Amino acid sequence: MRSRESKGDILDTIVNLPKTKRGQKTLNKILKAAEELFYEKGYHSTSIIDITNKSNIALGTFYIYFKDKFNLYKYLLLIYSHEIRKAVAEKITESDSRYDKEKIGLYAFLNYMRVNKHVYNILWESLYIDKNIFVDYYESFSLRYIEGLRKSQQTGEVSEVDLTVLSYVLMGISNFIGLKYVMFENAEDVDFEAVVDSVMDILENGMFNK
Amino acid sequence: MRSRESKGDILDTIVNLPKTKRGQKTLNKILKAAEELFYEKGYHSTSIIDITNKSNIALGTFYIYFKDKFNLYKYLLLIYSHEIRKAVAEKITESDSRYDKEKIGLYAFLNYMRVNKHVYNILWESLYIDKNIFVDYYESFSLRYIEGLRKSQQTGEVSEVDLTVLSYVLMGISNFIGLKYVMFENAEDVDFEAVVDSVMDILENGMFNK
Repeated sequence: MRSRESKGDILDTIVNLPKTKRGQKTLNKILKAAEELFYEKGYHSTSIIDITNKSNIALGTFYIYFKDKFNLYKYLLLIYSHEIRKAVAEKITESDSRYDKEKIGLYAFLNYMRVNKHVYNILWESLYIDKNIFVDYYESFSLRYIEGLRKSQQTGEVSEVDLTVLSYVLMGISNFIGLKYVMFENAEDVDFEAVVDSVMDILENGMFNK
Repeated sequence: MRSRESKGDILDTIVNLPKTKRGQKTLNKILKAAEELFYEKGYHSTSIIDITNKSNIALGTFYIYFKDKFNLYKYLLLIYSHEIRKAVAEKITESDSRYDKEKIGLYAFLNYMRVNKHVYNILWESLYIDKNIFVDYYESFSLRYIEGLRKSQQTGEVSEVDLTVLSYVLMGISNFIGLKYVMFENAEDVDFEAVVDSVMDILENGMFNK
């Protein structure tokens, strides 16, 4: 339980979570408005007043939930990180092999990004808001990735490579494949299965003829 | 010669290149000041006056070279893209095999980033300045990568994977390995050769035990 408790502590410092359904609805309105504004105008050009105006709530209501804009932003990133992990985890529970986990995981990640295109922009902007957020985001993603990869290494499925390097290799691949086929291309025209198959071929056999 | 000519045309629209050594020196001062300011304060918070003040030149002198801040920014990115390609190309000319090209190329890229840490920030900020710049940067990098990969595919060194996917896989890997071992870690403490070896192992054999 320790990690859940300490996670709760972090959460408590950035958001005051509502106890009623009505409060949750208000918080959701704030989040949705902030998300749209951060995506359209960027973090720095968005004020708390912009957010309360767009979500049609009183300025004081904002401060029931958040101390400031920075904490709202950090909470949004926590949500994204949680959503991405959930989108991937839900799909890979049935798969036992690491190969399937990677394949289905990449496919789930691309699908999440396809319907949440703003996430790249909002997440990567953290590099210009507070570099530590950007570092923390990928470092904690990497640590969880390594946990899973280590299990697969212990069962002999994953070869004896450095798992920190491997986790960044895999995150780099998903992110840049996502950039290309979700952000640069019209995602509707892309055969995601063919793209995922090509990536898996590289992850399985490497890029060289032998 | 066609590609060089059309490249010259693009260059002409964003910068008025000096014809004298003295002019080149002035332009370099502007570029250096802009680079430092964009890195420290970001593009939007940096004004042309900040740049001319820092480089100790008259405001009017700026306009001899650039129409506006946006063109200066685009020129900086062109320089980075050129420098990175040059840093890699210089090192890989002697290597005939695709394996060595990738290995030495990744090592050269990491070394370039190690001494030019600001490049990540300035380049990725383009996503928030003008998305097209960000897209163009990686798309043109990808196209050149594909050219080289296609040759190696024709000689049978590279397997029959989709080369667009492969180019983004390779760019994603270099970029995220660079993030981790240049931006997140203290690069001086990192054994780059060991990192590159791990990546090459994955590129050669894939990530799975067989």
